[in-house]
Amino acid sequence: MPYFDAASAAPLHPVARQALLAALDEGWADPARLYREGRRARLLLDAAREAAAEAVGCRPDELTFTPSGTAAVHSGMSGALEGRRRVGRHLAVSSVEHSSVLHSAAAHEARGGSVSEVPVDRTGAVGAAAFAGALREDTALACLQSANHEVGTEQPVAAVAEACRAAGVPLLVDAAQSLGRGPVPEGWSLLTGSAHKWGGPSGVGLLAVRKGVRFAVPGPADERESGRSAGFENLPAIVAAAASLRAVRAEAGVEAARLRALVDRIRAVVAESVPDVEVVGDPVRRLPHLVTFSCLYVDGETLLHELDRAGFSVSSGSSCTSSTLTPSHVLRAMGVLSEGNVRVSLPDGTAEADVDRFLEVLPGVVAEVRQRLGAAAPAASPAPAGSLVVDALGRRCPVPVIELAKAIGRVPVGGTVTVLADDEAARLDIPAWCGMREQEYVGEEPADRGSAYVVRRLS
Amino acid sequence: MPYFDAASAAPLHPVARQALLAALDEGWADPARLYREGRRARLLLDAAREAAAEAVGCRPDELTFTPSGTAAVHSGMSGALEGRRRVGRHLAVSSVEHSSVLHSAAAHEARGGSVSEVPVDRTGAVGAAAFAGALREDTALACLQSANHEVGTEQPVAAVAEACRAAGVPLLVDAAQSLGRGPVPEGWSLLTGSAHKWGGPSGVGLLAVRKGVRFAVPGPADERESGRSAGFENLPAIVAAAASLRAVRAEAGVEAARLRALVDRIRAVVAESVPDVEVVGDPVRRLPHLVTFSCLYVDGETLLHELDRAGFSVSSGSSCTSSTLTPSHVLRAMGVLSEGNVRVSLPDGTAEADVDRFLEVLPGVVAEVRQRLGAAAPAASPAPAGSLVVDALGRRCPVPVIELAKAIGRVPVGGTVTVLADDEAARLDIPAWCGMREQEYVGEEPADRGSAYVVRRLS
Repeated sequence: MPYFDAASAAPLHPVARQALLAALDEGWADPARLYREGRRARLLLDAAREAAAEAVGCRPDELTFTPSGTAAVHSGMSGALEGRRRVGRHLAVSSVEHSSVLHSAAAHEARGGSVSEVPVDRTGAVGAAAFAGALREDTALACLQSANHEVGTEQPVAAVAEACRAAGVPLLVDAAQSLGRGPVPEGWSLLTGSAHKWGGPSGVGLLAVRKGVRFAVPGPADERESGRSAGFENLPAIVAAAASLRAVRAEAGVEAARLRALVDRIRAVVAESVPDVEVVGDPVRRLPHLVTFSCLYVDGETLLHELDRAGFSVSSGSSCTSSTLTPSHVLRAMGVLSEGNVRVSLPDGTAEADVDRFLEVLPGVVAEVRQRLGAAAPAASPAPAGSLVVDALGRRCPVPVIELAKAIGRVPVGGTVTVLADDEAARLDIPAWCGMREQEYVGEEPADRGSAYVVRRLS
Repeated sequence: MPYFDAASAAPLHPVARQALLAALDEGWADPARLYREGRRARLLLDAAREAAAEAVGCRPDELTFTPSGTAAVHSGMSGALEGRRRVGRHLAVSSVEHSSVLHSAAAHEARGGSVSEVPVDRTGAVGAAAFAGALREDTALACLQSANHEVGTEQPVAAVAEACRAAGVPLLVDAAQSLGRGPVPEGWSLLTGSAHKWGGPSGVGLLAVRKGVRFAVPGPADERESGRSAGFENLPAIVAAAASLRAVRAEAGVEAARLRALVDRIRAVVAESVPDVEVVGDPVRRLPHLVTFSCLYVDGETLLHELDRAGFSVSSGSSCTSSTLTPSHVLRAMGVLSEGNVRVSLPDGTAEADVDRFLEVLPGVVAEVRQRLGAAAPAASPAPAGSLVVDALGRRCPVPVIELAKAIGRVPVGGTVTVLADDEAARLDIPAWCGMREQEYVGEEPADRGSAYVVRRLS
């Protein structure tokens, strides 16, 4: 059964499993103790730290293990912000960072700090010049991911790092998506990662802080992990994480090239075989294994469910997929379609045949979901006037867009359709639909409930 | 090779190992995802939560898993303090809590809160009336461990819980040492624990918060674990932790009785067979598996090293054991001897023969260490005057006490020995020596360097 959500979590690498089993026997004791079981645990911890440090390109004493990638980001950001409190309380981040970064930024703001979110283009990439422009005299920290976790686009880390260096601002690079897959970006001051994304076990994150970076973790003191990550070390898992990091990075070059070709195929075939689809993210400067596309007139949750029934595990940034009422902040920041969104991220070793089967199955699944939602129903009689108002209040995505698509044929060229909607996704998806269908998005107007989105028929 | 430091970490329980292996295959995916691997992970997480909740006696939605016992305490305390911020910013804790509690208290104080540390008696127990007296109108939270981690003394949790209930103050009970060993204390509002102390893997703590307790975790938002513990769940380890908690609690009654008898034997035999020893902690109201004693004229680090060479892994709260320059805060709060301190904590299944061998070996090891330190050397000629000043500046424990013991014979009954010392342990160990040797501790006076400790010879 093909699992295509490696960007969420990868299955345990065989090397990690083996290392974990050995370390369960050898590494359960407290590495701070002086007796033989403690010394043995300490040796394992030291060796894991050396291996991980070598893999990311830093000194062992610059690297600490945390309970998760999220904890690494929380600790890294709060430590750097606290350490440079005297410089100022300004933070610069890209608008498409992982939620752990953006939530840390929100918490910083709630405590009186200020935050600049640097926007991205339609591929999801931040502009290096725009990022440089966001750095100020009082900027304590800048954060930029190595590559985006939802659309795969690589960020211009080297150029941003250079700007940060010139401005004397430390740069935290969230490398969660790329650490197991290729070169570590140069120029970082702090680096974070997450083991279960590289085939390690869950329960292990990684935080590297370059010597010389001012760092002061706020909150309760703790003597473990240089005071940067509180609590008893998750040792067997740390040992397994380091072993698999080394293993996947050793295989990364060859495997990345293979997965890159598979993703190229997905990008091309999906764009051809699925009508009304938008493949998003940079087609070239991107993670090797990840591709995201959005399908008009499709409910993301139903699509995921049908793909799951067909045997494929993928994820989605649609607002209509889960308990969340808002579309992915990444798609929103890019200004691209969010409905019917699918992220495919291939684990190492993905079989070509599984990708082919996915590409065979997908068009039919999308068509079936559209059929069920009535998206293919013929347009009703022409509107009596030259314009129409469609009431989609209380309807969730993709219904407002489906209703818009049905109504547009009922007005003459030059006429308008006004969609009343209170679903958050409409704000993103109606303009995206206009772009894809070459109609004019006139704008959004306030309404008694929700908003009125006005579209002019051009063709 | 007998391992007698279960209070630090217990070896993995066979049930935990089995559960972990199964969950590595079944539970690596993101439990928040809707596809089959995610649903499978969610089922495992839900089942683990139900099992753990049943074991501690709470509802599943009251229980969250954290990355460690320390993280559970940090999150529990900060969440309860933040949630009751409007009530006030006062915190009451016992003086012998685990460092995670006391460090959280210090962090709270640094942020402008106030803290009362309730003292303990010489057995390490807090007085329920004294604790009740520390509760104020503006007390946001009270913290009391179920039993002490260094000396095993049980705390009067039920009585303190009753006082807290009457005062409307939530009580956090740190049950790290007792969860796997017997009944869960009644009356808690928040409860914390640590899996690697009950035979579970490292990387898992437990935080239960009763419905109705105001709780607001400060810091970055995160959707996992009801927002009380950030980051991807350490799922296979959580599954293993819950399985072993159930297993050890099922065996706890019988095993506790067996270990209690072994500890009674250690308490009695050590007191008889080792000269100048103080067995500390409550002899009756105590954890079943833990006993602590301190040996005069012994360097804790050397003692641990020699016991390790003889095959026994134990820990120590002496200041002379590790990088720390201060004796254990627990021994200090109790006002008992800290030098030559040894904590023995028996894991489940400890063989009687191993305990017997430990008791056979111990007196010889202590005697040898004393011999090496010159503690047994005969006193030199009598002092020319009726009093003596011993310069132990720059000497670490147990040297100041050894020098005092040598000097006391050189002054006549009624004469004084003044010890100049700058080692922190002297402040605790010189009065403790006086108590054990029935000499009079006159007091401490300031000196140019360190302090002058004055002792009068009584016999």
